[in-house]
Amino acid sequence: MNIAILIFDELTALDAVGPYEVLSRIPGVNLVFVAKEAGPKRTDTGALSLVAEAELADAAEPEIVVVPGGQGNRPLLEDEEVLSWVREAHAAGAWTTSVCTGSLVLGAAGVLEGLRATSHWAHREKLAAYGALPVAERVVFEGRVVTSAGVSAGIDMALRLTAEITRPEVAQAIQLGIEYDPDPPFAAGSPETAPPSIVELVRALEG
Amino acid sequence: MNIAILIFDELTALDAVGPYEVLSRIPGVNLVFVAKEAGPKRTDTGALSLVAEAELADAAEPEIVVVPGGQGNRPLLEDEEVLSWVREAHAAGAWTTSVCTGSLVLGAAGVLEGLRATSHWAHREKLAAYGALPVAERVVFEGRVVTSAGVSAGIDMALRLTAEITRPEVAQAIQLGIEYDPDPPFAAGSPETAPPSIVELVRALEG
Repeated sequence: MNIAILIFDELTALDAVGPYEVLSRIPGVNLVFVAKEAGPKRTDTGALSLVAEAELADAAEPEIVVVPGGQGNRPLLEDEEVLSWVREAHAAGAWTTSVCTGSLVLGAAGVLEGLRATSHWAHREKLAAYGALPVAERVVFEGRVVTSAGVSAGIDMALRLTAEITRPEVAQAIQLGIEYDPDPPFAAGSPETAPPSIVELVRALEG
Repeated sequence: MNIAILIFDELTALDAVGPYEVLSRIPGVNLVFVAKEAGPKRTDTGALSLVAEAELADAAEPEIVVVPGGQGNRPLLEDEEVLSWVREAHAAGAWTTSVCTGSLVLGAAGVLEGLRATSHWAHREKLAAYGALPVAERVVFEGRVVTSAGVSAGIDMALRLTAEITRPEVAQAIQLGIEYDPDPPFAAGSPETAPPSIVELVRALEG
């Protein structure tokens, strides 16, 4: 099974690396990081680069596409080369997935029309502009279109997708392998549970 | 505040990127990925490279050190250059931290002598060889030495560390920013909760 994770400058690293760490452990997969141009892509903090080893044309028939978020994906919303690649993979029956604001790219490609979809909580309502119905859920399956919430939600999305395309036991083994038994120190991971002052602060930072 | 994350070929990407995604969001920090030799380091699946922009000597006085795990850290257990760097940072008062089998490197550097410590569940008992007391906890603080469990546990570790060195509100804002409201699909993230057949399978794979 061919899996392509799209990366670009100013991506949010964990959006891509969370799903990578899960999906790359499915036996027999061929996972590649792709970009418009191969080479290192600097993340949104400026402190790290992830290397894309393939270009879009090298990953023409992915069976799973993962589109991460980060400020750097905004130019992609008007990039016909990228949008066509997403649209064609989707039309060919690929699992077309996103993490965080990666769902804006799926929306711009026309993939979310009429579907329930999610994104980072501070950006979710933007999905309506693409004909999607924004929902406050962590992972949303609509046929083979799978959107997930902000940053860390890509781990949950990838485990659910693994269970769906293989067997639950494979997802369980991967979950145990990465010891994903989370224990967040605060009930602050969602705008529904975080202190209101923290929600306002982060909303302002997210812009 | 200077933060150095040590990377090397055959590291487990999420071990490094989880803490990175949290710690890099602390206002004012200077976070760098360091290696014995600068350049791209290929992760343990072969599908991704993370780029180290600095060498050990360039990060001589880190205030936080993060050592990730992965098969590729085993040669470091006998690498005096790396062990001295860890030992000196610890002696200078740095927060000396690990994710997954990164704790074996802290052990080999002599940092865990007489301390409670953790690691990936399948490797935890190896810490006893370094004079540590292995404990089945997700994050273990012993003064400024902080060890965490397998792979995904680095996110929890980094959030706790952020709360400790700044204020709880900063950690909460970061937790909300990365929407860390985890929802694992199975109760399989720990050997205490996963089905016994899955535990045996993963134990065999971990070797």
